[in-house]
Amino acid sequence: MPTALTSLSSGAGITLACDAMGGDHGVHAVVPGAALALKQKPDLRFIMAGHAPTILAVLNRFPELKARTTLIETDETVAAHEKPSAALRRKNTSMRLAIDAVVGEAQAVVSSGNTGALMAIAKLVLRPLPGVHRPAIAAVMPNMKKTRTVMLDMGANLVCDAENFVQFAALGALYMRSAYNVAEPRIGLMNVGSEDTKGHEVQQNASRMLQAAKLPGKYVGFVEGNDITSGAVDVVVCDGFTGNVALKTAEGVGKMFGNALKEELKSSVLTKIGALFCMGALQHLKRRFDPRLYNGGVFLGLSGLCLKSHGSADALAFSNALLVAATMAERKFTDAVATQMKQLAEQAVYIELQEGAV
Amino acid sequence: MPTALTSLSSGAGITLACDAMGGDHGVHAVVPGAALALKQKPDLRFIMAGHAPTILAVLNRFPELKARTTLIETDETVAAHEKPSAALRRKNTSMRLAIDAVVGEAQAVVSSGNTGALMAIAKLVLRPLPGVHRPAIAAVMPNMKKTRTVMLDMGANLVCDAENFVQFAALGALYMRSAYNVAEPRIGLMNVGSEDTKGHEVQQNASRMLQAAKLPGKYVGFVEGNDITSGAVDVVVCDGFTGNVALKTAEGVGKMFGNALKEELKSSVLTKIGALFCMGALQHLKRRFDPRLYNGGVFLGLSGLCLKSHGSADALAFSNALLVAATMAERKFTDAVATQMKQLAEQAVYIELQEGAV
Repeated sequence: MPTALTSLSSGAGITLACDAMGGDHGVHAVVPGAALALKQKPDLRFIMAGHAPTILAVLNRFPELKARTTLIETDETVAAHEKPSAALRRKNTSMRLAIDAVVGEAQAVVSSGNTGALMAIAKLVLRPLPGVHRPAIAAVMPNMKKTRTVMLDMGANLVCDAENFVQFAALGALYMRSAYNVAEPRIGLMNVGSEDTKGHEVQQNASRMLQAAKLPGKYVGFVEGNDITSGAVDVVVCDGFTGNVALKTAEGVGKMFGNALKEELKSSVLTKIGALFCMGALQHLKRRFDPRLYNGGVFLGLSGLCLKSHGSADALAFSNALLVAATMAERKFTDAVATQMKQLAEQAVYIELQEGAV
Repeated sequence: MPTALTSLSSGAGITLACDAMGGDHGVHAVVPGAALALKQKPDLRFIMAGHAPTILAVLNRFPELKARTTLIETDETVAAHEKPSAALRRKNTSMRLAIDAVVGEAQAVVSSGNTGALMAIAKLVLRPLPGVHRPAIAAVMPNMKKTRTVMLDMGANLVCDAENFVQFAALGALYMRSAYNVAEPRIGLMNVGSEDTKGHEVQQNASRMLQAAKLPGKYVGFVEGNDITSGAVDVVVCDGFTGNVALKTAEGVGKMFGNALKEELKSSVLTKIGALFCMGALQHLKRRFDPRLYNGGVFLGLSGLCLKSHGSADALAFSNALLVAATMAERKFTDAVATQMKQLAEQAVYIELQEGAV
């Protein structure tokens, strides 16, 4: 069962930058979230960018955290619905300054703020790693095997070519290795059937390339929408349009079931009594699918780590994103991606595609 | 709450053709399913294509149904995994003969057999209606407002242009009118956000055309994956790749929640007792999302009605598909589509697109 991420080390040497003003709850999620993460990894350090008096009003309640936190002061913030292009032009927002910190002494940045703006600024400041054609957003979902499945891309790249899919496969597999300790991630390519002839030409070409490529995981072939939750694979590769629709569809169905279950259990005195007997089990069920344990999105393929926590992230959700970031930093995810991209280029998988398939 | 379709009439004058051998249960779902439908609409007539002794072995148990059923005898069937191209060549399969009956005296055909084969044969035999560029497969889903939402296309057309989307919108709206009595269906176009600039160019162009078109419903703009189940719209328009992935994702999440709920409620003696108290509510919950009440797929845009029931359809599921087919036939769905396609052509919505948008 997914629980808060188990810390594998103390977090020594890791500094995490936080956009302290991002998300619905701002400092009220970020600061207590950092305090929770610090309990798990007591050697972590933090950089918090934002309005200093607002941050300190909460930070003063956590002296241990305060002692390990550096502030970057600014009054500017990125608004929730600000256009990415507008946010990009402002260099003193809490989001921008937190991302800038990754070029300096921080190993990763976490924000609950405006996703489009975060993506645009991170891409500009942190730049894609050499060899990465398109950085991607990955999201982690629960599955029927009680493990996690990562899906990418979730909306950064609406149109993808076969090379992009191969790179997403490598990025997703390295992510499952570093963040969730899956030694040999199973990788599937999203399609509308499992036969070779199914789907668009781009899926068919990518599948041939994935079969030929040496990947940090095992390519198992085409998967379908139900495999996001079946547990058949650890990594689901798709374009950003498909991934975005699938993620939101899954969230919508989850919400519909959750609401319907609540409604039915309140439908009579008898069911209310029954629900009391089942309270523990129902809470356990809720925890199994608690979105706070599936830390928002991760931007994969940049030269620095950037994680997006949910806009509605509370302290637990934010701490979970911080712990994932710290674990990825400790395991040198970015170096692993750089090495993998070189290896893929050397394997000449792409050349084969350019000559034959497309 | 979705229940078995309420019959609005007796079914007088309607003859339904059945592929008696299709699906996992063959005659054991088809014949009792027809008997159930006949109870709701006692004036229905049936044509059943398949192996006569096998059909009669079950049909003899339903004398009233038998009196209203004509057999088309054949020993040939389409196999579950037969290639559509192979099935197309065989003219004496139960599926083919059932579809052929729609060119004759039947008003609709229902099969639980091989979807790809059914689609290919139906398209060949029944032909698209004049003006329909691409027939589409529609599927109906439950939603949070306790009504139904239809989504199309579900896989017949992986690549769609803006004109296809406008036609799907009209087809979906007419379907909700005729099958589910929704007078003014709200139509949404699937995208990755609600702003005008979101998505591919094809969504942006289609949205402009949908705003300009006179449709048998109200176009509300872009919707997202969660709107399949939010109840915000009655019709969700998308390409077949996206629709197929979204449907299977929804099925997968539903299965995951259902299994997890069962598991949790069996986790201790206490929860088992509690579950007994909640039995009625839990069964009600199950019924709300019973896939048997959301009759498989419907092929929209052909000159004859063709419905696909689930491969695993039992008698209830098959009867539901038959009743939907009968209602659509009574309400002259095909004529309505023909009229609508003419009107769309006269509105010159497409021409505007060809000049300006694409």
